[in-house]
Amino acid sequence: MQDSFIKGLAEIVGAQYVLTGESDTAPYTTDWRKQYRGAAAGVVRPASTAEVSAVVGLCAAAGVAIVPQGGNTGLSGGSVPTGKRPEIVLSLARMNRIRQLDALNDTLTAEAGCVLADIQRAADDAGRLFALSLAAEGSCQIGGNLSTNAGGVNVLRYGNARDQVLGIEAVLPDGRVWDGLRGLRKDNTGYDLKQLFIGAEGTLGVITAAVLKLHPKPSASATAWVAVENPNRAVELLNHLRKTCGQRLTAFELLSQTCAQAVFAHRPEIRDPLPGAAWSVLVELADSGADDALKQMLEQALDTECAANAVVAQTGAESKALWRIRETVPEAQFANVKHDISVAISKVPEFIERAGAALEKAFPGVRIYCFGHLGDGNLHYNIGDATLLAASRDAVNRIVYDEVAALKGSISAEHGLGQLKRDEITRHKDPLELELMRAVKHAFDPQGLMNPGKIL
Amino acid sequence: MQDSFIKGLAEIVGAQYVLTGESDTAPYTTDWRKQYRGAAAGVVRPASTAEVSAVVGLCAAAGVAIVPQGGNTGLSGGSVPTGKRPEIVLSLARMNRIRQLDALNDTLTAEAGCVLADIQRAADDAGRLFALSLAAEGSCQIGGNLSTNAGGVNVLRYGNARDQVLGIEAVLPDGRVWDGLRGLRKDNTGYDLKQLFIGAEGTLGVITAAVLKLHPKPSASATAWVAVENPNRAVELLNHLRKTCGQRLTAFELLSQTCAQAVFAHRPEIRDPLPGAAWSVLVELADSGADDALKQMLEQALDTECAANAVVAQTGAESKALWRIRETVPEAQFANVKHDISVAISKVPEFIERAGAALEKAFPGVRIYCFGHLGDGNLHYNIGDATLLAASRDAVNRIVYDEVAALKGSISAEHGLGQLKRDEITRHKDPLELELMRAVKHAFDPQGLMNPGKIL
Repeated sequence: MQDSFIKGLAEIVGAQYVLTGESDTAPYTTDWRKQYRGAAAGVVRPASTAEVSAVVGLCAAAGVAIVPQGGNTGLSGGSVPTGKRPEIVLSLARMNRIRQLDALNDTLTAEAGCVLADIQRAADDAGRLFALSLAAEGSCQIGGNLSTNAGGVNVLRYGNARDQVLGIEAVLPDGRVWDGLRGLRKDNTGYDLKQLFIGAEGTLGVITAAVLKLHPKPSASATAWVAVENPNRAVELLNHLRKTCGQRLTAFELLSQTCAQAVFAHRPEIRDPLPGAAWSVLVELADSGADDALKQMLEQALDTECAANAVVAQTGAESKALWRIRETVPEAQFANVKHDISVAISKVPEFIERAGAALEKAFPGVRIYCFGHLGDGNLHYNIGDATLLAASRDAVNRIVYDEVAALKGSISAEHGLGQLKRDEITRHKDPLELELMRAVKHAFDPQGLMNPGKIL
Repeated sequence: MQDSFIKGLAEIVGAQYVLTGESDTAPYTTDWRKQYRGAAAGVVRPASTAEVSAVVGLCAAAGVAIVPQGGNTGLSGGSVPTGKRPEIVLSLARMNRIRQLDALNDTLTAEAGCVLADIQRAADDAGRLFALSLAAEGSCQIGGNLSTNAGGVNVLRYGNARDQVLGIEAVLPDGRVWDGLRGLRKDNTGYDLKQLFIGAEGTLGVITAAVLKLHPKPSASATAWVAVENPNRAVELLNHLRKTCGQRLTAFELLSQTCAQAVFAHRPEIRDPLPGAAWSVLVELADSGADDALKQMLEQALDTECAANAVVAQTGAESKALWRIRETVPEAQFANVKHDISVAISKVPEFIERAGAALEKAFPGVRIYCFGHLGDGNLHYNIGDATLLAASRDAVNRIVYDEVAALKGSISAEHGLGQLKRDEITRHKDPLELELMRAVKHAFDPQGLMNPGKIL
């Protein structure tokens, strides 16, 4: 990279915010699972939209590609450079101001670098709920959450990251700033452009700020652990709870026996609430009003034949203990062939049966860890152990993804494509859809400067 | 138009489904308010996606433009031809099958020509709610609802038409069919293309079918009529109800005294529930469980200083009577200068004050009918009478839209741009946003064949 280019970047953001030494840039050029490493000409850390605009403009003039990066907590390698061409990492971390909280409009305007947990706290302080919640919330940033259309544990009730947004501000690939920061719940004045940037993984421009929706803060919650015989029963239970508890249902998480056993083996201090359950479901309700009424509603609702057995948490501590089981699943079965798939909720049992049979046939005795957001039709479906991961990753992927395709599902429900599934998706998506995506990409970024090697 | 072209259309759909005589085509070439009339070379009524594909392909080859049309109930002239170039009207009315209802996935797959009320009924028969609801529901069609991103009375709780969609099928401007009919709640595999077609008013392609979200059907409802001193109090009341009743709040409709008086003058048989109210609010809650508990919750919540006075409906008939007041507003003040605007909910009182003062200054003694979906920041803000409409429409529009712009609002909250606001929007939208919209249009429809003269 020419010195004059690096000097130009330093003139925009200040020399101390342009990192070029290898030890300084390493945390930005490696993803957190250490699956992807790519060199960058530099890491640039602007503090304002104007600085982002100037940096992107300079890159466009120099033909240098841009990798926008938030908390770098992604699981698909979308936030680190590929190293295949001149690239900079554009870190949004210093843009971490909450610009406005409009309580009467139930909106919060945040810059891209705001950490998700900080936004949740600001909303909470104003007596509101910001509904996006996921494991990485202490370090992921809202710009990354929106660019990847993050999911998490509240999707069943509140939707994905996309559904939390009323407006965005974005820097386009030529450096111009699009101010789409509208806090309107209704606006039918042409194409809804923000929807393109959301989930684009930084390939169409850089999201620099967003107007986010807030919700009434529930004052009551109730949590239960439920044993069910099989996934069919779990889907019936979901249907039953939606009918009886309506919109109070905020979480419905499924765990296979293998997952539960892995948790109790990994953390012996965690107690098994219902030993011997073939499948388990974590249920949560939330509402205004008091806890007791909600607990009673949940207890009554769980008195149904779809539930083999159930315990309702009687205290906040008991509720936390149940959530801890669910939250420990990822670390309890770490080294295996992972998937993040979705199918129609009604098709989940069929998927589990078909994929399980196909895997057993190919790899007799294989261990399957199946868990996730059944209320969204989204399973984290992880196969085998480190040995299988090393030897047969591609073969396992092929079996799982073919079953997903047969049921018209998605091979990336909430983690995005990034580098990880960029090639795989071409096997599954209609070529016409890929053509339309490329046409959009070309319309926004004809030079191909934005996050190359991701998605398309 | 050449005979061979018309003959080609007839070969695709059958001769009886190609209308060319003026009396046959008139209902399709005039909008229902009779504001827009444009000639068409023919009206084509295909019965399947394959037929739509073939018709569009033939038009593309012949350079004939296509005006997709659903129930033709739009208010902005988006569904009728401009007559400025060779055009056909493509009526989706015969594509009226519900292809699938998947109760366990809470989805319904409908063809574009399904009447909204028929979809609501199908959902209801399955013990589910399809949440989109608006005045024209007995004749509007879902394809038009999605193409215009329709709003209506349930947006506060369930969102706009956009929020009711999981997947679409669309015929592209060259006749190819994009099958995006996925019933997935999570799918992060690239750009969310369906979002472009939703709200595009048929300018990017023809929506032929959609996978729609269903919700649990509430078993209880409670309705109240509330007198408030001024719009500030109404916003405070909204805030209070969101806090105390949470997601139960499904409607929050504001009416100025002028609107209420117009209703009671127009329909003397309708009783005024709270005579003398300066401003009125219609509130509705919905929930699972029984009506009585919900009525009690609403009564308690309305015991607040923001409400000057309130009555809670004690029977279904009383609830209907309150809704009838709201529903009669449009016909009770028909001939005037109409607007469909939105601002942040917190800015509604400021808008009402600023716009009212500016209008009073320009037109002393002018009558203002202000009503609408305050819970969405959306007002139908109608000015004066037939005389003002005839003499000063543009001047009134200018005053209202300038106040909307000063508060970063929208000049078309739920009715779309169509022909009506196609020029006006160029005064308000950032030229960069218009440029991006044109780039999207060009990427999808380089020949400019889809619904020309609308939006852009």
